[in-house]
Amino acid sequence: MNNKRAVVLLSGGLDSTTALFFARAQGYKVFALIFDYGQRHRKEIKVAQKIAREIGCVYTVLKINLPWKGSALLDKNISLPQNRNLVKILKNKIPATYVPARNIIFLSFAASYAEAVGAQAIFIGANIRDYSGYPDCRPEFFKAFRQVLAKGIKAGVEGKTIEIKTPLIRKDKSQIIKLGLSLKVPYQMTWSCYRGGETPCGRCDSCILRKKGFDQLGIKDPLLAVIQ
Amino acid sequence: MNNKRAVVLLSGGLDSTTALFFARAQGYKVFALIFDYGQRHRKEIKVAQKIAREIGCVYTVLKINLPWKGSALLDKNISLPQNRNLVKILKNKIPATYVPARNIIFLSFAASYAEAVGAQAIFIGANIRDYSGYPDCRPEFFKAFRQVLAKGIKAGVEGKTIEIKTPLIRKDKSQIIKLGLSLKVPYQMTWSCYRGGETPCGRCDSCILRKKGFDQLGIKDPLLAVIQ
Repeated sequence: MNNKRAVVLLSGGLDSTTALFFARAQGYKVFALIFDYGQRHRKEIKVAQKIAREIGCVYTVLKINLPWKGSALLDKNISLPQNRNLVKILKNKIPATYVPARNIIFLSFAASYAEAVGAQAIFIGANIRDYSGYPDCRPEFFKAFRQVLAKGIKAGVEGKTIEIKTPLIRKDKSQIIKLGLSLKVPYQMTWSCYRGGETPCGRCDSCILRKKGFDQLGIKDPLLAVIQ
Repeated sequence: MNNKRAVVLLSGGLDSTTALFFARAQGYKVFALIFDYGQRHRKEIKVAQKIAREIGCVYTVLKINLPWKGSALLDKNISLPQNRNLVKILKNKIPATYVPARNIIFLSFAASYAEAVGAQAIFIGANIRDYSGYPDCRPEFFKAFRQVLAKGIKAGVEGKTIEIKTPLIRKDKSQIIKLGLSLKVPYQMTWSCYRGGETPCGRCDSCILRKKGFDQLGIKDPLLAVIQ
């Protein structure tokens, strides 16, 4: 019996889906954790579930309610940054799409879930080369959170560490896609656009970074091939 | 105008209510954060709201759904420890009432709330002398979490630290009550019993620790005076 278990934070985007396939390839029985947190691109919730079902993994959709706003991802009255050029996106200034403490909240629930199912690891698809400057995607944040798990949860105190795995952390978007293609990630199923319309808008930071990855590999994004 | 703002984690129990009054006495405009997390002693949610209204502070009740169980506080099929003597309670073995990653989750939301309202501090009533052995109440846990806030949230990165304040951390129950009485905490309004019945059960760890505090001061618990 395979006793390796991992919780994977799954948004249905390119990065987290790659992390999901990576965890599975490492021999983990995977428990996907999907958040419904009032994001404007609610479409990703359905996409994430579809992907989880596609590979037959256990998944949970957790609804969390953030009554305070303050992010363009939660509040339609705040404009999404759009048509920013790569230089500007990659300047790593924290953008309007930042959701206060989002990954801290996500990892907290992942830790709780991991304890409950006896998982040894949490996988998250965060990465810092082609990214939008969110502080809770940086290695120093994950390092700090590892200490929280070592000191603050029963498993940690009892020496059964729950590791936080960030296999994509230093990869750029094209390297992530390359890894994913080798793992047979069905990128046509994934969804990155912040707008969550019928088709990707092509203008938000997330669309622009995704395009950069496929362009660098000289491949057409299979999602666009499916849609067009 | 007073610009000092603090989020206070408020359960309606003796410790968190003391922390609330302490924060207020320190000159903070207080934002109380109350969790409805499926606890069996749901009564404390109402109590917490009543206390917040009593002092006229802003409060938010946040419903969080933990679909996984594994704690006597969430699952009525797991027995609450009862009639344990103080020596056994204070041995600090993690009890069945432990909720996986609870304070990590609570602090995560508090951090998000604090960012959203521009608060400089989060107050939590955790303490480790008369306590049940929860790992996420220990100073080393809070120390680790402070690092998470320094590295993982926008305010932290921008140098506007959100502090985690644990004013009760090294006090025993009688010292907490003594402090609270000096701050005019209405202990007759607070609720500690895990069972959440009409009257405190007197047998759960929480009731036993509360009784110890009042006994040491030679005072009758005002809650019992009100009820009887």
